[in-house]
Amino acid sequence: MKIGESIKRYRVKPGDKVDLAAWDAGDCSLFSGGKIESQTVFDELRDELQALQKVLYAQNKHRVLIVLQAMDTGGKDGCVKHVFSRVDPQGVNVKAFKKPSEEELAHDFLWRVHPHVPGNGQIVIFNRSHYEDILAVRVKKLFGDEVWKRRYRHVTDFERMLAEEGTTIIKMFLQISKDEQKRRLESRLANPAKHWKLNPDDMSDRARWSEFQKAYEDLIEKTSTDQAPWYIIPGDRKWYRNLVVARIMVDTLRGLRMDYPKPDWDPASVKIV
Amino acid sequence: MKIGESIKRYRVKPGDKVDLAAWDAGDCSLFSGGKIESQTVFDELRDELQALQKVLYAQNKHRVLIVLQAMDTGGKDGCVKHVFSRVDPQGVNVKAFKKPSEEELAHDFLWRVHPHVPGNGQIVIFNRSHYEDILAVRVKKLFGDEVWKRRYRHVTDFERMLAEEGTTIIKMFLQISKDEQKRRLESRLANPAKHWKLNPDDMSDRARWSEFQKAYEDLIEKTSTDQAPWYIIPGDRKWYRNLVVARIMVDTLRGLRMDYPKPDWDPASVKIV
Repeated sequence: MKIGESIKRYRVKPGDKVDLAAWDAGDCSLFSGGKIESQTVFDELRDELQALQKVLYAQNKHRVLIVLQAMDTGGKDGCVKHVFSRVDPQGVNVKAFKKPSEEELAHDFLWRVHPHVPGNGQIVIFNRSHYEDILAVRVKKLFGDEVWKRRYRHVTDFERMLAEEGTTIIKMFLQISKDEQKRRLESRLANPAKHWKLNPDDMSDRARWSEFQKAYEDLIEKTSTDQAPWYIIPGDRKWYRNLVVARIMVDTLRGLRMDYPKPDWDPASVKIV
Repeated sequence: MKIGESIKRYRVKPGDKVDLAAWDAGDCSLFSGGKIESQTVFDELRDELQALQKVLYAQNKHRVLIVLQAMDTGGKDGCVKHVFSRVDPQGVNVKAFKKPSEEELAHDFLWRVHPHVPGNGQIVIFNRSHYEDILAVRVKKLFGDEVWKRRYRHVTDFERMLAEEGTTIIKMFLQISKDEQKRRLESRLANPAKHWKLNPDDMSDRARWSEFQKAYEDLIEKTSTDQAPWYIIPGDRKWYRNLVVARIMVDTLRGLRMDYPKPDWDPASVKIV
């Protein structure tokens, strides 16, 4: 898989206009083979991710926050499962955000999010996030428009603070096409073992597909910053989506130029008797 | 006690320069009598505060955050004890922030603060606060200068978000003179029952009095906003300090124009058989 510069094509630069129709959810142009051929490359990436996470944990210095957003069936759960399957669970937390509780709604929208941000040496993955408090609030008209409009600034302020205090932030929108969502919903419907993943809300959200796309476009445009960039990941092919996410993770962690901490004593001076 | 407009003399307007030497810690000019005469007025204020807090709690709509900062012996504990002594403890939480733990230091500085902000219907008092992460970090040189300088923006961003999401924020610096601090420290030293409140750090902080004053001046200048104003409270006379704090609390809660919530059923229609 081509790496480095080329993976940046999925990154939204601050100020870029975002037109999701111009992004191909079925794209797999950075890999020359198909699903079968991708397996070896994916394995290598997972091994490197595992090794990098070990240093991150040992060094106990950097904090890494991954935000995953997608339409229903977009692949957030599958992505976490496959990309992070070999990483030491002690250093990686996944925090899923559901519909806010009454107590959560009685506070500012970042109140339930902040306690879960990563500390030193940790990777935290947000499966949904504070961005739902813009997206869902806007499309489902849960509060007046002034509320979600103000929140663009609130999230960029919040993420600036996190970044300046030492957190590396990567935000990924797993993009799928409306046709692919239809296939995945039908497949869930046909499989009783997957009915727990279905929700009547998914259908009403699907009915508002274009409103959600518009909401995502504005959101990504207004909140993709140097400190906390958005990536739009082609998600129709799961193997390619996983490959790209793993690649971004590895590039990001490499970029931290980490090293195992040096002991502040001389190992040669130790005698074990 | 003169109220309303006149109490605003203690409020620092955005953009005001702050020279603490020009503020008189011994001021008691808004009250014509002395300590004895103040008692009746103070009692009335406490009664009104109690009544206002009841509505705040019942209405379950507004959130009120009080930030108290002061030099050692400045009267934060005493102020909380006297002003809020009659308020229903169920609706008022006091959160004291001590030296951050290792786990807290392994996160952004607002991480330990955010979980304690008030929810609907609540008053929360911060006894010390996120402002210590600017003041102490600056004067004691705990991190590089760039860290505390960035944090002015972080706290104003944070407080803007809280305010726009529905929180009323009042910040109070209880100002005492260096002479008054000497008297209070000596009095603590002379009283074994108060030795638990003494800390060798207090003496080294006192030795850096002028650096702390400068740090407070900059901090108040840079973080007094319309959404989260600072008040500089004359603190040398405890009775006057309490009177002013109670007055500000009452004026602030009155300003919310609260009302008991109307039931969404008709009480006249209820028959208790």
